[in-house]
Amino acid sequence: MQPSEESLSVNLGERSYPILIQDGALGNADLTPWVSGNRVLIVTNETVGPLYMDQARACFPGCDIDEIQLPDGERYKNWETLNRIFDTLLEKHHTRKTTLVALGGGVIGDITGFAAATYQRGVDFIQIPTTLLAQVDASVGGKTGINHPLGKNMIGAFHQPKVVVIDPLTLNSLPPAELSAGMAEVIKYGLIRDADFLAWLEEHMDRLMALQAEDLKVAIRRSCECKAAIVAEDERESGVRALLNLGHTFGHAIETHTGYSEWLHGEAVAAGMMMATDLSERLGYLNYNDSTRVRQLLIRARLPVNPPEGMTPVHFKALMQVDKKNLTGELRLVLLKELGDAVVTSGFDDEALEATLDYFCHPLD
Amino acid sequence: MQPSEESLSVNLGERSYPILIQDGALGNADLTPWVSGNRVLIVTNETVGPLYMDQARACFPGCDIDEIQLPDGERYKNWETLNRIFDTLLEKHHTRKTTLVALGGGVIGDITGFAAATYQRGVDFIQIPTTLLAQVDASVGGKTGINHPLGKNMIGAFHQPKVVVIDPLTLNSLPPAELSAGMAEVIKYGLIRDADFLAWLEEHMDRLMALQAEDLKVAIRRSCECKAAIVAEDERESGVRALLNLGHTFGHAIETHTGYSEWLHGEAVAAGMMMATDLSERLGYLNYNDSTRVRQLLIRARLPVNPPEGMTPVHFKALMQVDKKNLTGELRLVLLKELGDAVVTSGFDDEALEATLDYFCHPLD
Repeated sequence: MQPSEESLSVNLGERSYPILIQDGALGNADLTPWVSGNRVLIVTNETVGPLYMDQARACFPGCDIDEIQLPDGERYKNWETLNRIFDTLLEKHHTRKTTLVALGGGVIGDITGFAAATYQRGVDFIQIPTTLLAQVDASVGGKTGINHPLGKNMIGAFHQPKVVVIDPLTLNSLPPAELSAGMAEVIKYGLIRDADFLAWLEEHMDRLMALQAEDLKVAIRRSCECKAAIVAEDERESGVRALLNLGHTFGHAIETHTGYSEWLHGEAVAAGMMMATDLSERLGYLNYNDSTRVRQLLIRARLPVNPPEGMTPVHFKALMQVDKKNLTGELRLVLLKELGDAVVTSGFDDEALEATLDYFCHPLD
Repeated sequence: MQPSEESLSVNLGERSYPILIQDGALGNADLTPWVSGNRVLIVTNETVGPLYMDQARACFPGCDIDEIQLPDGERYKNWETLNRIFDTLLEKHHTRKTTLVALGGGVIGDITGFAAATYQRGVDFIQIPTTLLAQVDASVGGKTGINHPLGKNMIGAFHQPKVVVIDPLTLNSLPPAELSAGMAEVIKYGLIRDADFLAWLEEHMDRLMALQAEDLKVAIRRSCECKAAIVAEDERESGVRALLNLGHTFGHAIETHTGYSEWLHGEAVAAGMMMATDLSERLGYLNYNDSTRVRQLLIRARLPVNPPEGMTPVHFKALMQVDKKNLTGELRLVLLKELGDAVVTSGFDDEALEATLDYFCHPLD
């Protein structure tokens, strides 16, 4: 498959790479042009492997292919699981010329990318994201890593893939909760950068949730374009890229509190975006109607708009302090100046944050 | 301390950095110009910490300094030890603006550099190498990493320091075996690139081994210049940088076989260089006189010129297969075309390698 109108490019100089978006790419695309040696290790998990491993192998005709199936879930995004990839690579004598292929969602992409970033100080990798979240988020930007008991994604590297292949047909096998979780990031792009896209999403959300293929392709492509434009401006996350973290500081606190196991990342981000929206309203940036639009859209995407029961303001404040977006020890948050326009803020009114935390942590009081 | 005639520069574009070489730098140099935030974590080991931690702290006036002492030895260059650094960084809420300082030998430099490369996807670091080996080898080139049970340095990253500070006075506290181990790398630069330096070393080896300060500074500086020139040509080790691995393929096999605990890296490299020299002679590149010069110089530096007893050709061949210099599955070795001129070779006569392995593995037969 050659780059065509079905593809877009992430422009990062010599680290630029294409994203191919095509129904049926899994099983039909020839990815060997992006394999520099002839050896490939396909990394997947126990859920995705049985569904798509055969089609993934078919994308590498003539290559010497090894595979490894990891356990499924964010709680396995740790050193022990990463080490299983290294064990396989070393037991099978993979050299620096090998190519790692991530077949799965964000966890598989992050952990495989980090293995590629650090195996023998860096080898090639290819991403085949099979969840909506991974397709619109992890597929662009080169962030890789694992979790630490004291914080999410605290250990990692920037490492760009050679190519990303998105087959929207994989979404047909996605559990509904994961479709929603991915939709949280899609909505995020509208909120932080693209009011027109936000309005389009309000029109099309029901069709998207019903897996209308053409609409999904539009949403995936527009999301990737949004993220690619931001990443091209700021590959190493020193500036504008921070806007992508809308809802993530609150969200990571939720994920850390729940041990990375109960809430999907996108669900935590959804609740976090609602909290950031609320804080933006308290600071006078948004009005009540704006907040309501955000809440309604998240609800239509079947996403949570409150943190988990039992989480207190004290929990949030303790966990938000070690968030990596917190650059100088002073809390920095991404907030909305208006719908479609985000800003990184610090030195805001602490009382407003307290009010937001109180409001969300005692929603029934 | 400003860059002066006591410093040289490693030229890597925007990742360029200075190497300061100065008696008494530890305790007297002001390194705050290379600290971008105001927080520092000094990583050292139980041997070096009691000797130099106070002087190291004095190099960061006005900074908020944390410290961690790791166990001493190559066998601790593993994930568990690395994780202790991450634990400390997270427990003390270090952000992306922190600076890691490696105070110690090559193990501390490699593991601290890798922690810096991967903590929150990359933070700054500074190297203060306190062994001759680290001063002439690890201080230039940005290689960082840890060992895996199946191979040395198999997990790592390229990550350049902001500055390297070499205080030759630290060599006064160095165990004699470690002085010798460092001298192996010094000799290596003469062998692979600089016949004049090799001749200078033959003249000055006894003075160097007696820790004559001015001669040591010349040797350190010339070694760093050699390595810096090679690294500037080839930062990511795709070409000429491979020459730095003279003796390392044999040497890594020795280190892996002995579990990274009995032999110092430089000792293994010394025996490995002697094996590479022998193979070079068998292939007709060197003559008997050349080999004898190498052997004599290594012996005067009190270095081993044979692998450990009990190691067999089968051991070597099994362990050399997973060496990371082995790019395509075909064995590639650095050999000497003549003294002062190295070459990466593959497709050489297998029988010559067999003869070298047999000769060194049965030295008493």
